[in-house]
Amino acid sequence: MGLRRFTWLAASAALAVGFVAASGCGPQGSGNKPVGNAPGNAAGTAGTGGGAADGALLSAAEMETAKDIYFDRCAGCHGVLRKGATGPNIEPASTKPKGTEYLKKIINDGTDKGMPEWGKSGTLNAQDVDLMARYIQVDPPAPPEWSLKDMKSSHKVLVPVAQRPSAPPPGRNWQNYFGVILRDVGKVAIIDGDTKKVISIVKSGFAVHILRTSASGRYFYTIGRDGRVTLIDLWMEKPDTVAEVKAANDARSIDTSKFEGFEDKYAIVGGYWPPVMAVLKGDTLEPIRVISTSSYEIDEGTFVREARVAAIVSDHHHPTWVVNIKEAGQIWLVDYSKLGDGEGTVSIDQIRAERFLHDGGWDTSKRYFLVAANARNKVSIIDTQSQKLVKNLDTGGVKPHPGRGANLVHPQFGPLWATGHVGSNDVTFIGTDPDGHPDNAFKVVKKVQLPGDGGGNLFIKTHPNSQHIYCDRPLHPDVTLADSIFVLDKNSFEHKKTLTIPEQFRGHKAVHLEFNKDGNEIWVCAWGKKSGTGAILVYDDKTLELKATITDPELVTPTGHFNVWNTVKDIY
Amino acid sequence: MGLRRFTWLAASAALAVGFVAASGCGPQGSGNKPVGNAPGNAAGTAGTGGGAADGALLSAAEMETAKDIYFDRCAGCHGVLRKGATGPNIEPASTKPKGTEYLKKIINDGTDKGMPEWGKSGTLNAQDVDLMARYIQVDPPAPPEWSLKDMKSSHKVLVPVAQRPSAPPPGRNWQNYFGVILRDVGKVAIIDGDTKKVISIVKSGFAVHILRTSASGRYFYTIGRDGRVTLIDLWMEKPDTVAEVKAANDARSIDTSKFEGFEDKYAIVGGYWPPVMAVLKGDTLEPIRVISTSSYEIDEGTFVREARVAAIVSDHHHPTWVVNIKEAGQIWLVDYSKLGDGEGTVSIDQIRAERFLHDGGWDTSKRYFLVAANARNKVSIIDTQSQKLVKNLDTGGVKPHPGRGANLVHPQFGPLWATGHVGSNDVTFIGTDPDGHPDNAFKVVKKVQLPGDGGGNLFIKTHPNSQHIYCDRPLHPDVTLADSIFVLDKNSFEHKKTLTIPEQFRGHKAVHLEFNKDGNEIWVCAWGKKSGTGAILVYDDKTLELKATITDPELVTPTGHFNVWNTVKDIY
Repeated sequence: MGLRRFTWLAASAALAVGFVAASGCGPQGSGNKPVGNAPGNAAGTAGTGGGAADGALLSAAEMETAKDIYFDRCAGCHGVLRKGATGPNIEPASTKPKGTEYLKKIINDGTDKGMPEWGKSGTLNAQDVDLMARYIQVDPPAPPEWSLKDMKSSHKVLVPVAQRPSAPPPGRNWQNYFGVILRDVGKVAIIDGDTKKVISIVKSGFAVHILRTSASGRYFYTIGRDGRVTLIDLWMEKPDTVAEVKAANDARSIDTSKFEGFEDKYAIVGGYWPPVMAVLKGDTLEPIRVISTSSYEIDEGTFVREARVAAIVSDHHHPTWVVNIKEAGQIWLVDYSKLGDGEGTVSIDQIRAERFLHDGGWDTSKRYFLVAANARNKVSIIDTQSQKLVKNLDTGGVKPHPGRGANLVHPQFGPLWATGHVGSNDVTFIGTDPDGHPDNAFKVVKKVQLPGDGGGNLFIKTHPNSQHIYCDRPLHPDVTLADSIFVLDKNSFEHKKTLTIPEQFRGHKAVHLEFNKDGNEIWVCAWGKKSGTGAILVYDDKTLELKATITDPELVTPTGHFNVWNTVKDIY
Repeated sequence: MGLRRFTWLAASAALAVGFVAASGCGPQGSGNKPVGNAPGNAAGTAGTGGGAADGALLSAAEMETAKDIYFDRCAGCHGVLRKGATGPNIEPASTKPKGTEYLKKIINDGTDKGMPEWGKSGTLNAQDVDLMARYIQVDPPAPPEWSLKDMKSSHKVLVPVAQRPSAPPPGRNWQNYFGVILRDVGKVAIIDGDTKKVISIVKSGFAVHILRTSASGRYFYTIGRDGRVTLIDLWMEKPDTVAEVKAANDARSIDTSKFEGFEDKYAIVGGYWPPVMAVLKGDTLEPIRVISTSSYEIDEGTFVREARVAAIVSDHHHPTWVVNIKEAGQIWLVDYSKLGDGEGTVSIDQIRAERFLHDGGWDTSKRYFLVAANARNKVSIIDTQSQKLVKNLDTGGVKPHPGRGANLVHPQFGPLWATGHVGSNDVTFIGTDPDGHPDNAFKVVKKVQLPGDGGGNLFIKTHPNSQHIYCDRPLHPDVTLADSIFVLDKNSFEHKKTLTIPEQFRGHKAVHLEFNKDGNEIWVCAWGKKSGTGAILVYDDKTLELKATITDPELVTPTGHFNVWNTVKDIY
């Protein structure tokens, strides 16, 4: 299974032809006798093509390189069609007036609005920076489609259901296993949470974004940035991939059916490109249905071809997935109860919320779903019982980024859900109990500032058995902040301690937080470079002292980790 | 209000630039130094552009003319992106190998598969035929989008609700009014069914496709081929337009909310381009929501940008519209009960059915919806109670075309729904009563052949008070068939009589059939040329004799007519 990159497929060939055919005909083309060579660009940018502002041109080989870099580094925020979302619109009409030198500076140095410093950080060399500055001034090539038939062609069952173990591995507390994303090597590590041993390293798609569990917990589902899904059976003595499929060319989210009677029946993948929901059979990953999420955004009702699927969560109380359509600003409740083997009816409640929807999670009761809408610093709140928007709540922070958020029951304010922000240093606590605490319901009841200037928080985590809330800040340019975890007290909201990374891992970033099953250990990824090693740091939740350091030659670039039990039960 | 044609808007300008920019660069372009002028064609046809197969080129002026002709004559069957549906795919990859001369012959002479003889019939002159043969060999220009904001900009309330009559016009049997489409002049005639007088001629969109009524019946909603919607108030002494909006650039269907408690609250428009459902307020046509219908087709799960909305019907028993997504082969049940003022939740049941869905209607009980799926000569049947597909029934005929179909209760077979076929001469009767007549349910229980060779039937009609079923065949090349109406007996299914058009209207086509409110008259359009006059012919349903001929200097190209009462009650 190929590890990475967007599959450009036939479109690459077509574009290669296109570039040759279009030779010599920028706006300064060599003739003016009209021909029928209409760009036919559905993005409506016909006529904006040509070279960069200063006439610099790209060779076919440069185009191929630039497309891959763009997918790896730029598409997530700017979109494959470059219309923007988390990042601004960078279509040629926007970029050409800026000129190549200006664009190079932005790409190299980053901006204080969130653009990473790709050159300065060493991710891109000077040649790449120059290439990308020119690439974003020419029309985006047409990204390839990916049909249900394509998905089916890519589908493999490596271990048929009947040949899989019929019982969990004896003597193992498999519900306390962790799946750890090894981002830059396209693998996932399975670690026994009791023994702290790496028990398996399993190939996955490129830069896995998240892991989710089956309703039973026996399977991990991984979703790669390249849309590859793998199914890892944790009941095997040495957990391994039992099925795989490529569900899209670019994807971020996956979950399974959790409602009673449908446990483990379906999985759903959220595509970035093509923008789709793809439904798979839960135990084999066989693709059975694909649904477009291209739709009209909520502001002016403009068609958005690239209306991508951000977070998906599975409703425990209804046979429904909550699917967040980022650029559309819509939340779709997708009912799978009449889907059958894929031939049946899919019911979708389309709810107007806010742009751009990103990540989110349940409140304590699992009735309300809260999701970041980072275009306007809001959190959109859905009542899954009435299937309606509760409100779009202004967080007072910049670009909320909750992951799934953190739930606690405060002695005074009652149940709260917390989010950090990638664009500001505050942690926002929102009341989620309209019955017991109506005065606080769906309001910001508390704000806490993390130490240091700017840089924001990426992930936040707690556990019902813990008295603490943990916050990382791996994106901070100050390494002494980027490698630290900030601990808040659940009752007082005070900054109680900063967990420091051990000396040997200085220079690594401390990223992503996960509790063990019992909720008495907090695990943190020490994210090193691909050429070095990473580690998992285990802190005692009571003493806040480092309890264990998990290292392994194969534990390269760990960037996220998921405990089986807490993932099954949506404990966060 | 402009009468006709696709609004190409900004895209026209962009394309003009595009053509100039692309000057001289067909596949035989004048240089080969690669530039970034990627066509970026989302249709994936990058590199197929250039002139026609024999090198013939189109001027910018020719492109403008060709685009309009294409919209008027070709897009309905081949699609604006030319990917085909009712007609075959005619993208350049399909057309260029055929060559200009071959294409001219097809366009001029038509085919026995349903392509009209555009040249021979005099619709297009030799120059137009030549132009279109060349036009379809170059990449289709990007059709313009149409946002909710655009819709709102086009919206006009000509007579506010408060200023409209509060009671029906005294002494008028307004529920027996007819609205008559005057296709080629962009108007609608309102005729009093009792007096047979033309009481009003009202401007409309271009080539109105259908009229529908509000739940109360007081309003006619018209939908033009150019997406223009007009609302005609029948309670005015002289019925006139009270509101209008352009809901799409190309559209075919409209209906209103009919469920108890929602009467007249909403209207829904089905767009061909952009492919959308647009929801309007029922009494003002204010646009409040737009939903994309671009989706994955049922065969191979391939994305179809141009997945158009064919028929829409309003469910009387649920707060739901039945919306047929032609190229996707999906039937969507759209629940408007939580929509509010447009800000609320829209619920869509997406049901896999068959391609290409066209037109259809209710069975007698209004529980089952039957719709032509003309790619495979089937009728798809939906149970709106269980919200599931009953079956895709093979009709045994070629390209079923029911309009809304014709319902009867047969003494032996029980309730039946009938359809004709545009591609064959048979009328197909399908059982629709699974409880009372389970042996016949959703099977073809009877086939009747209409006289003459080929040419098919376009519309079929009956009424509960009638003993007859009426069939037109206006597309038949034999004028003695095209100007006749064939009457079948409801019990014996025998061909009882052929109604002939009066001598003075010979050469006109007899098209579309509608009963009066009492169900004792059948009205037929005598469809003449734009330069001449048309007429409405009224036949007595009992005697089958011509009872009245309605003429008027303004009654030009009547092609369809709708009785208020029968439309409100879905009697057909």
